Amino acid sequence: MSTLADRILAGDAKAIARGISLIEDEDPAGAELVRAIFGRTGGAYLIGVTGPPGAGKSTLVDRLVAIIRSERSHRRHDDASSPSRESAPSVGVIAVDPTSPFTGGAVLGDRLRMQAHAADEGVFIRSMATRGHLGGLARATGDAALLLDAAGKEIIVIETVGVGQDEVDIIRTADVSIVTLVPGTGDEVQALKAGIMEIADIFVVNKADREGAERLVSAVEANLALHLYGPAEWRPPIVKTTATTGQGVRDVVDAIWRFRDHAERTQAARTRARSEYRLRELVAHQFMDHLEHRVLAPGELTAVVDRIAERSLDPYTAARELVRRCLS
Amino acid sequence: MSTLADRILAGDAKAIARGISLIEDEDPAGAELVRAIFGRTGGAYLIGVTGPPGAGKSTLVDRLVAIIRSERSHRRHDDASSPSRESAPSVGVIAVDPTSPFTGGAVLGDRLRMQAHAADEGVFIRSMATRGHLGGLARATGDAALLLDAAGKEIIVIETVGVGQDEVDIIRTADVSIVTLVPGTGDEVQALKAGIMEIADIFVVNKADREGAERLVSAVEANLALHLYGPAEWRPPIVKTTATTGQGVRDVVDAIWRFRDHAERTQAARTRARSEYRLRELVAHQFMDHLEHRVLAPGELTAVVDRIAERSLDPYTAARELVRRCLS
Repeated sequence: MSTLADRILAGDAKAIARGISLIEDEDPAGAELVRAIFGRTGGAYLIGVTGPPGAGKSTLVDRLVAIIRSERSHRRHDDASSPSRESAPSVGVIAVDPTSPFTGGAVLGDRLRMQAHAADEGVFIRSMATRGHLGGLARATGDAALLLDAAGKEIIVIETVGVGQDEVDIIRTADVSIVTLVPGTGDEVQALKAGIMEIADIFVVNKADREGAERLVSAVEANLALHLYGPAEWRPPIVKTTATTGQGVRDVVDAIWRFRDHAERTQAARTRARSEYRLRELVAHQFMDHLEHRVLAPGELTAVVDRIAERSLDPYTAARELVRRCLS
Repeated sequence: MSTLADRILAGDAKAIARGISLIEDEDPAGAELVRAIFGRTGGAYLIGVTGPPGAGKSTLVDRLVAIIRSERSHRRHDDASSPSRESAPSVGVIAVDPTSPFTGGAVLGDRLRMQAHAADEGVFIRSMATRGHLGGLARATGDAALLLDAAGKEIIVIETVGVGQDEVDIIRTADVSIVTLVPGTGDEVQALKAGIMEIADIFVVNKADREGAERLVSAVEANLALHLYGPAEWRPPIVKTTATTGQGVRDVVDAIWRFRDHAERTQAARTRARSEYRLRELVAHQFMDHLEHRVLAPGELTAVVDRIAERSLDPYTAARELVRRCLS
């Protein structure tokens, strides 16, 4: 195991890919790997990008990466001796892709997207598919980001499709959250209601050349106007882009760095919140694992579930009983 | 507490609303209520409706409810003596609405929608907002559905906005899952990739009068064609609707009843899967509660989180240690 960890710390792309696969498969070796490299993490800046399907997030992220790669290093904990100080920052992209098992789109998408940066060894792109229940995807995404962080990626972009709680949870783990909206879905208000207003640090209205773009910008503005921002408070900017041509994408990058400067004071609180979320999720996961594989006899959980299904036992009482049996 | 449970069992709308509020607030009395009424549940048929924002789900659900209300009773466990046998089935609607705290849209939306069925005492509509972490919303939605079930609602519609894992989890608890898509978002393939292909029992292409509707139907067809359905297997139909005019909505209702007849054999497996999901989620929740409030001293969790945030302790080791301290 230490060999794989060492190779990841040295930035070996194949080792990173192998490590992420272990995490995705919920292999215990994946957890061991995270434990081994955890002390070497914390240096990367995490950019979260979310929004509804069809908002053009992949194209936007590709453009963002190209611009970031053309800039000087943004590594946070850089010191004068860091050799990467003057070079382009290395970038990792995790595309959380709830692809249907029908299509195998994740793998195909990776290949297509890798080609855009094929000549650029400083960019690592990886899709992760939806899997499991109860925070499994958020956990896997967070662990994958830790591997990239340990491997020396200075900027990590986490891209998710969707506007549900799971995406909100994933994006909350980022240092800056970009919500991408798109005109022409005909119902701007519904898009804004979708639980993402309050997590956005930056709004991007993509496909801004389309009819309805100004109306969408106005709708977001109107929503922001309802919130009274204090003078020292960050007011999310709304950036218009046409990611296919690259129009406006540099403004997004500028907004990211502006937010980063602004948020320096609150960075510690974000790191804490992220650590707490992670801890709670892992505690629940490890307890379930203990209950299922060490406390209950084979078939016992099934029998309890059967009683609930036939309504002779309610789930609250059953859960209480199961938890009690484990406690000291 | 027993009074509230009794009133819910008698179908009292105010008592149902009060019970759902207790559940939403994670008041322990909410859990007690579910325990009290659980033995009287299992009679309702749960219809899940999901899809991206702007797909017109609210309008579609309103139309579905109107048609169902105009039909004869569909209560599953009806017997000859049931007085509701020949009357219109009573309906409950739970709209899972991840509304921003900026807008207060949920309450407003409830009022607007209630007006459409204002004269109809057989319809109960309630929004639930996104709240908490780790399955909290799926748990609250499931409990609210149990209250409606116990109150004698024969049909319960659970409507969610979004295409994330959380929505998938909620919709999985339904007896039939309807995925609503809409043409004109310009990127049909992405919509189909959004993790919802595999949970759909019925596809609805709403706003079917729009340009691109046929292209969207073809895209869904093409995806279904990749899956080889056995002769006895349910192949999800694709129903075109224009919910604003009501066009096609009766076809959706017909598809629901066809699916229900078809799925009679597999109904038991669905009920089991739902019970298991529920039990696992509650066990994790109750264990965290025990750990936080009975095992750890005040401030202790904070201290652990701080050590993780400063990278002197990794979350896997911390979680293992915390779980160990609770175990016998």
